[in-house]
Amino acid sequence: MKSAEDMIETGNSARTGDTRQRLTDMKLDALILTIPENVLFLSGFWPMIGASILVFPANGNPVCIIPGCYEEESRQELWEAVPEYYSYGLTSSPEPFAAVSRLLKKAAGGRQWKRIGIEGSLRSAAVSWNSAEFILPDKQYTGVLEEVFPCAELIDIVPHLSRWKARKNDWEIERIRRASEISCLGLDTFERLAVPGRTGVEIAAEVEKRIMIDGTGLDGAKRVRAYAQVATGPVETAIAYRPNEISTTRRIEEGDLVLLELGVTAEGYWADRTRVRTAGKPSEQQLDIFALVLEAQTAAIRAVGPGVPAGAIDDTARSVIAKEGYAGEFPHITGHGVGFSYHEPLPVLRPDSPDTLEKGMVHSVEPGIYIPSFGGMRLEDDILVTDNGYEILGPYKKELA
Amino acid sequence: MKSAEDMIETGNSARTGDTRQRLTDMKLDALILTIPENVLFLSGFWPMIGASILVFPANGNPVCIIPGCYEEESRQELWEAVPEYYSYGLTSSPEPFAAVSRLLKKAAGGRQWKRIGIEGSLRSAAVSWNSAEFILPDKQYTGVLEEVFPCAELIDIVPHLSRWKARKNDWEIERIRRASEISCLGLDTFERLAVPGRTGVEIAAEVEKRIMIDGTGLDGAKRVRAYAQVATGPVETAIAYRPNEISTTRRIEEGDLVLLELGVTAEGYWADRTRVRTAGKPSEQQLDIFALVLEAQTAAIRAVGPGVPAGAIDDTARSVIAKEGYAGEFPHITGHGVGFSYHEPLPVLRPDSPDTLEKGMVHSVEPGIYIPSFGGMRLEDDILVTDNGYEILGPYKKELA
Repeated sequence: MKSAEDMIETGNSARTGDTRQRLTDMKLDALILTIPENVLFLSGFWPMIGASILVFPANGNPVCIIPGCYEEESRQELWEAVPEYYSYGLTSSPEPFAAVSRLLKKAAGGRQWKRIGIEGSLRSAAVSWNSAEFILPDKQYTGVLEEVFPCAELIDIVPHLSRWKARKNDWEIERIRRASEISCLGLDTFERLAVPGRTGVEIAAEVEKRIMIDGTGLDGAKRVRAYAQVATGPVETAIAYRPNEISTTRRIEEGDLVLLELGVTAEGYWADRTRVRTAGKPSEQQLDIFALVLEAQTAAIRAVGPGVPAGAIDDTARSVIAKEGYAGEFPHITGHGVGFSYHEPLPVLRPDSPDTLEKGMVHSVEPGIYIPSFGGMRLEDDILVTDNGYEILGPYKKELA
Repeated sequence: MKSAEDMIETGNSARTGDTRQRLTDMKLDALILTIPENVLFLSGFWPMIGASILVFPANGNPVCIIPGCYEEESRQELWEAVPEYYSYGLTSSPEPFAAVSRLLKKAAGGRQWKRIGIEGSLRSAAVSWNSAEFILPDKQYTGVLEEVFPCAELIDIVPHLSRWKARKNDWEIERIRRASEISCLGLDTFERLAVPGRTGVEIAAEVEKRIMIDGTGLDGAKRVRAYAQVATGPVETAIAYRPNEISTTRRIEEGDLVLLELGVTAEGYWADRTRVRTAGKPSEQQLDIFALVLEAQTAAIRAVGPGVPAGAIDDTARSVIAKEGYAGEFPHITGHGVGFSYHEPLPVLRPDSPDTLEKGMVHSVEPGIYIPSFGGMRLEDDILVTDNGYEILGPYKKELA
């Protein structure tokens, strides 16, 4: 990890250079982005709330329109974009969109843009730092864009953006790796606490606390937060493939399966992990199923490399599980992109996936088996596709007990 | 707090009855809502992610379209809406919008709706439970609505919805009060830990952990989460009026001010609190400023009642602070609505507010003073407007040390 000074000096010029070329190729005059993960992607600044707007032209300097109260943070983080600050959230602040409108005009600098890429079809977005709320790019926002650029076609750039974000460069990988390494702190706490007498909600809270306290400051990460879900016992773990679980106050009993699903962000870059443990001495069946899930995950990870169809990785994991007769008990995908958010749409590792793995992609590999009245198991790590194979980000041991 | 069984039996018929009447008055045939806080508002079910859709007609039973994996939770929570489940997030799941389209048609039951209220101008939304991501009602979503209801006018209902949500009924107040009471657990932990040697990030993590562990299960709350921000020392607390703070690894020194900003959700209902402490023995100036902030908050709270202009409450707090010469050091609003999210737009307590307080409104009262090189102080509680006055929700002591 470079020092803060180096980061600012070098920025991520590979990314901004690539993007300029893409805009030119697509005959786009500029991008205007406001979802925090996208502002981060092309400016280096991770907005605290969704009130910052990045104007990224094909030619000339990008401009980032930012609430004035975040001047210090944004000056430390922005690569090359020129910050423009506006008064926000104070009793003395004028209507914010009036300022935004003025600053958008200034950013365009009289250029008559004809084609502008915007976030037109966004379906899912990562939460911003510490935010119990989410600011959405609403009709008023797009109305301002239409008013400021009346001659421009506003083009939905989200499908392209998803593709650009899927292949991470070295600068980004360094930061995603840091998030994965920080996630290991939570895996460690999980291992210690997955014991009889504890509850899922206790373990989840302790995992989140550990990551926030011990992760903040690691390699310069200033904003670290975890979202943990802990299922315990046969009933809860048997449905632990759902998008969100409720960690409960049920007390763990001897021999229970305990499953941790963990999302971690460090400075806006994400990790996604899963571990499973037996509280106490595991049964023969638990050991067998665990060995099978581990075999499926290991085989799938080993198959990762550039040029490999994403569906083939899914097939590798699914075949291992199917050969023991558990095909129907592995109901979810084998993996998904991760990095700028907890779940990215590309690549998707599932049967019939249209995606091919490319160098720089980061994706989860997370096979699982869920059996009613027995329980569920899943193992998940984030895998980087390298020049000729793969790298497990933030390696961490996998043991049932 | 009633038992789970009573809640389901009685639901919140006052709310659904009111809403039906409003739809009739506005000549709206139905509402179609998908933001979690709005689905909760009119159905009793708090979606775990943003993939549930509530169809609430002016006549007939509401229908809630829900990912099938949340059948158990939704059956426990839904009042009168009929659940319709669709396969979501599994490798076997068809394209979700195909199912949504089919179920929307079924919900309309052949009725030719002409005017449908939708979330057309949403700017800010509360995060859903435990979610590191947010699902947004995007173009594909509105496209499905247009396709399913080709003859209907889709009308932006958000400004109305904000007004309806501003006045809480007894059912809702009971749940918002519970969130406020749970927030007191965090205030207690904050008081104990705001001492020399601790860091802001440590205190924030401990406050969140305490609320999650000890708040879950309180009065039947199953999903409890806190978002804490802790500023320490003169530099950090002097800017602690910003929408989001970064809790840091700076170690608290003897005599430092320590400020906690705290958002808490319990089952989708929210509390918003602030306390400030001196680590160790307070200085004369700290005691004086604290007394002034407390006087301003106390005077403002005592002025709360139905029929009172929201601007008058702001004026009460601001006048107390101004009389000692600190008008310029109180740069933010005195309060805002709270309950279905951490911040609601109505009422807003600021100079020139157009709002008048009404019975059932819940709003924060949170004056503050921020002085460069000295630091910042704020006190915040959530206040219910009652028949003839006010109630402080989750009362908790205010002491500087």
